[in-house]
Amino acid sequence: MPRARAVVITESGGPEVLSLGETDVRDPGPHELLVRVHAAGLNRADTLQRRGFYPAPKGAPADVPGLEYAGTVEATGRAVSRFSVGDEVMGIAAGGAMATHLVTHEREAIPVPDDMDLTVAGGVPEVWLTAYDALFRQAQVGLGSRVLIHAVASGVGTAAVQLVKHAGGVALGTSRSAAKLERMAALGLDHGIHTTKGEFAATVRDAVGGVDVILDTVGGAYLGENVAALAPGGTMVVIGLMGGVKGELPLGVLLGKRLSIIGSVLRARPLEEKAALSQAFTRAVLPSLTDGTLRPVIDTVMPMSEVAEAHRRMDANETFGKIVLTWE
Amino acid sequence: MPRARAVVITESGGPEVLSLGETDVRDPGPHELLVRVHAAGLNRADTLQRRGFYPAPKGAPADVPGLEYAGTVEATGRAVSRFSVGDEVMGIAAGGAMATHLVTHEREAIPVPDDMDLTVAGGVPEVWLTAYDALFRQAQVGLGSRVLIHAVASGVGTAAVQLVKHAGGVALGTSRSAAKLERMAALGLDHGIHTTKGEFAATVRDAVGGVDVILDTVGGAYLGENVAALAPGGTMVVIGLMGGVKGELPLGVLLGKRLSIIGSVLRARPLEEKAALSQAFTRAVLPSLTDGTLRPVIDTVMPMSEVAEAHRRMDANETFGKIVLTWE
Repeated sequence: MPRARAVVITESGGPEVLSLGETDVRDPGPHELLVRVHAAGLNRADTLQRRGFYPAPKGAPADVPGLEYAGTVEATGRAVSRFSVGDEVMGIAAGGAMATHLVTHEREAIPVPDDMDLTVAGGVPEVWLTAYDALFRQAQVGLGSRVLIHAVASGVGTAAVQLVKHAGGVALGTSRSAAKLERMAALGLDHGIHTTKGEFAATVRDAVGGVDVILDTVGGAYLGENVAALAPGGTMVVIGLMGGVKGELPLGVLLGKRLSIIGSVLRARPLEEKAALSQAFTRAVLPSLTDGTLRPVIDTVMPMSEVAEAHRRMDANETFGKIVLTWE
Repeated sequence: MPRARAVVITESGGPEVLSLGETDVRDPGPHELLVRVHAAGLNRADTLQRRGFYPAPKGAPADVPGLEYAGTVEATGRAVSRFSVGDEVMGIAAGGAMATHLVTHEREAIPVPDDMDLTVAGGVPEVWLTAYDALFRQAQVGLGSRVLIHAVASGVGTAAVQLVKHAGGVALGTSRSAAKLERMAALGLDHGIHTTKGEFAATVRDAVGGVDVILDTVGGAYLGENVAALAPGGTMVVIGLMGGVKGELPLGVLLGKRLSIIGSVLRARPLEEKAALSQAFTRAVLPSLTDGTLRPVIDTVMPMSEVAEAHRRMDANETFGKIVLTWE
């Protein structure tokens, strides 16, 4: 079995437990691609996995992080029809994307637009697929939808704001940094809400009456305010739990306003669902990433050897958009 | 303005605050029907309104309870096209149905099947529309769906079990009464779960692995067990809060299993949504209530003058199916 260079989590802990090492790469099956990875975006889930709170699902390497990649097809299974050796592809992975090589099913892979740099592409799949899925496939964002996005300057936030505006919606967003909110206005954010104590519902109601959809990355700490901020019939999609894994749910308000709360993760989904999402995304969103209507926001590009420093930067919440790590 | 005899809530309190009195009935508008009410089912929400916990929405009389009715069309607005004087109709109301007369929009009214007694029909709309809406329009119950129904011997429970079985699903239900569960088996209940301490998730998992849909009338007290009982991708529709208006939501499980929680009430919905539901119900469910495939379960029929006693019976949780009150 060939070996790849890889970021390895040597034990659970701080960024210092990360080092460069090696991992196994299996041969591609009939419908699979062997990809030479050029870049892999860093995600909050990688830092959780490093700390021991988010073990890799079955089938993914336990000690190699990385949920997304961009690279070049190096070999194809005998039944592959969508890609050829040399094609540039990007996609999500259940883990192990921070390696020089990975194997993926051809229907999970997404073609990299001609004019998009492979480094930029490495930070696209996870946040853009997550935001697209949550806003348009879990919730039904459309023309005129009022959408509240928490941690709006994060990778997924910068993608979500652009998707909401492109679909004709109204984008509201929270951040603990006033400076980040100013930068978000240039991406189309209609209402930036500076919140340091987790209070935002009153501001949301003053601005737009209530929101139809919330994209929530906070969880427990924001549950009550989120329910208060939703308009009747509104939907909240919870995709992260940075503010706690439990919270008190005001069921009386849930019923009175007829609200929906949906929990969503990409990583645990079976192949067929990830493939369906990749295909829908390729049709619905990729054209607008290709023509420049939608623009990936990159915070920092760092060599894979500096992965520990990249984790420190994310842990400090200093980022605006994505951190992308590249192999030299 | 003509007057109707009516059940009146004289003040907030126990069943003793109910008495027979009078209420105003306005003339029907162009698309409305004036209905001479024969029977009106009693619902848990009526007892909440009596206790002062569930005020009538705007447009409904504040002091006359009653969320459903069956009766005879006594007059029609000049633009009415679906019904004529003398037709038997049934339907939901935002309140005021426990009166000898009420006014409703013709598109909210549902024709009473020829062979259905008007007394039985008085107990049909609220629970059958609620169960149909929750199971098939909020959740997507279908062939093979595993559905858990709490308080399964209640009016809505007896309707829900039959609807689930008719749609090819697997029906599980909880009750605090073993005797009621035995009776429910005859209605098609596949797995009766006798629960006195609010524990049922382990039994559900042993029986079917997990459920795709929960129809919940309990709320707070069952929230944790409900989330534990759901299968990945499952949906819980909360339609009642007999066990508390707040509860701790385990968001980590919500995300990990990608669950949905939906709050639903009929009463607060605008006319157009209630009309759409009534029309969909007429097409999808009424034929099976007409040919006897689906059978309304009546616990007790009592004269409207005994409304206080009817409330006592419901408060004591002694019922199996619906209590219906009739005008002599």
